[in-house]
Amino acid sequence: MTRLRLDLAYDGTAYSGWARQPDLRTVQGVVEAALTQALRLAERAAITCAGRTDAGVHARGQVAHVDLALDPGDLDVASLARSVRGLLPEDVWLRALSIAPDDFDARFSALSRRYSYRVSDDPLSWDPLRRHDTLRHPRALDLEAMNEAAQAILGEHDFAALCRPREGASTVRTMLDLTWSRADDGVAVMNVSADAFCHSMVRAVVGVLVPVGEGRQSIAWPGDVLSRGVRDSSVQVMPPHPLTLEAVHYPADTELAARQSVTRAYRGR
Amino acid sequence: MTRLRLDLAYDGTAYSGWARQPDLRTVQGVVEAALTQALRLAERAAITCAGRTDAGVHARGQVAHVDLALDPGDLDVASLARSVRGLLPEDVWLRALSIAPDDFDARFSALSRRYSYRVSDDPLSWDPLRRHDTLRHPRALDLEAMNEAAQAILGEHDFAALCRPREGASTVRTMLDLTWSRADDGVAVMNVSADAFCHSMVRAVVGVLVPVGEGRQSIAWPGDVLSRGVRDSSVQVMPPHPLTLEAVHYPADTELAARQSVTRAYRGR
Repeated sequence: MTRLRLDLAYDGTAYSGWARQPDLRTVQGVVEAALTQALRLAERAAITCAGRTDAGVHARGQVAHVDLALDPGDLDVASLARSVRGLLPEDVWLRALSIAPDDFDARFSALSRRYSYRVSDDPLSWDPLRRHDTLRHPRALDLEAMNEAAQAILGEHDFAALCRPREGASTVRTMLDLTWSRADDGVAVMNVSADAFCHSMVRAVVGVLVPVGEGRQSIAWPGDVLSRGVRDSSVQVMPPHPLTLEAVHYPADTELAARQSVTRAYRGR
Repeated sequence: MTRLRLDLAYDGTAYSGWARQPDLRTVQGVVEAALTQALRLAERAAITCAGRTDAGVHARGQVAHVDLALDPGDLDVASLARSVRGLLPEDVWLRALSIAPDDFDARFSALSRRYSYRVSDDPLSWDPLRRHDTLRHPRALDLEAMNEAAQAILGEHDFAALCRPREGASTVRTMLDLTWSRADDGVAVMNVSADAFCHSMVRAVVGVLVPVGEGRQSIAWPGDVLSRGVRDSSVQVMPPHPLTLEAVHYPADTELAARQSVTRAYRGR
């Protein structure tokens, strides 16, 4: 038995998200198909990822694992990577392929996920080349006000107000970082890290901060919405296409097993 | 009579270049059509640009002008900009529209043009979201060697060896800057400025430097090719899609007329 780690980047524009679904084009679907074909497996390889991105969401730092009924010594990883790259469509790329360390689990060993969200709020900064991963917003945003409002979102909270809950799953998460800044091209970029994110959580966080940046809501409003703990219909879930999974962070190899058991106990399957 | 300055950005992927051509989709064609429709002109508005980009080449900083048979006082420029933006396709964007200063000519007043060329030379840095404006190159590039070789290309030269000559037109140009560096994402980016560029010159310059970066040619080779003054079949003209016109520089308003007459005398129509 060999567990492989896959580092993936993709343009999510043409995909119905990460998770395999019958009759829909998904990132998991095309990666599993390429791997299955490259290895000439009789049964489809089943991969597990760190961040199940929604339809239209991109990744530069997605991490996944797959278990193969092979001895590690029987596998030429470099040759397999070349072959998989040749089989993948041009909007999905295998950045790296490696034999995973003991106790590595792409989902349960992860310490945190980092996403970015790009908003152009000035006609002078709009770049048609980046229209696939940037929102064109008609009003200027005050990033200082948004960063001030974000303070109330940092740390551990029940994010029920800012995500689409799934039955039986906890909506408690720890927000490790949330910072808006200007990229070199003038575009407003939110970088956000948490131990994990609930469904549509990043897009709701953007939706609760943008009205503050426009001056339409007070700096206290996002914290108030969050603390009420119920979905607020005045919070807009923003579009998916400006969202990119940038990175997944793992502990040192010696800590992988411990992290995995903590996460499993806490969040369950 | 009013001269307007247009600042334009476009994704050149779907265009047969800037210059209007019968039966082909060109950037000039769609911008002229939008302007003509927005102003309800009986005859097509004719625009002149600073850098006539080739098929597949992009721009973030294209500058153009158009002359309208209108008094400047009769024109609401902000309203016209909104209307033109609404008529343009999503891959062309009007960043700014303004009444041009006296003696402004988008082409002949320009002091210099700056282009960028993006090359990903490492599987770890390849980003499918940027595949429309980045070259995926299979071998690692030594940017220091390329920058050293570029020294011989700086300054005034006859660039006949590195461009497709047009009959009767000079191929003497002044290269003001040529620097390769790594962007934050690891991609190798060439930034290059010259008073003006001949046809396919930037792509031939990349083609003469990449073999140096790969160690297949000596640091002296690009200078040798250039000084021979004839096209060298061993120089590959690189693909157009990683090339973007980043900016056009103009002198202060009071110097526009002087610059225009110098350029006209030197390069002709």
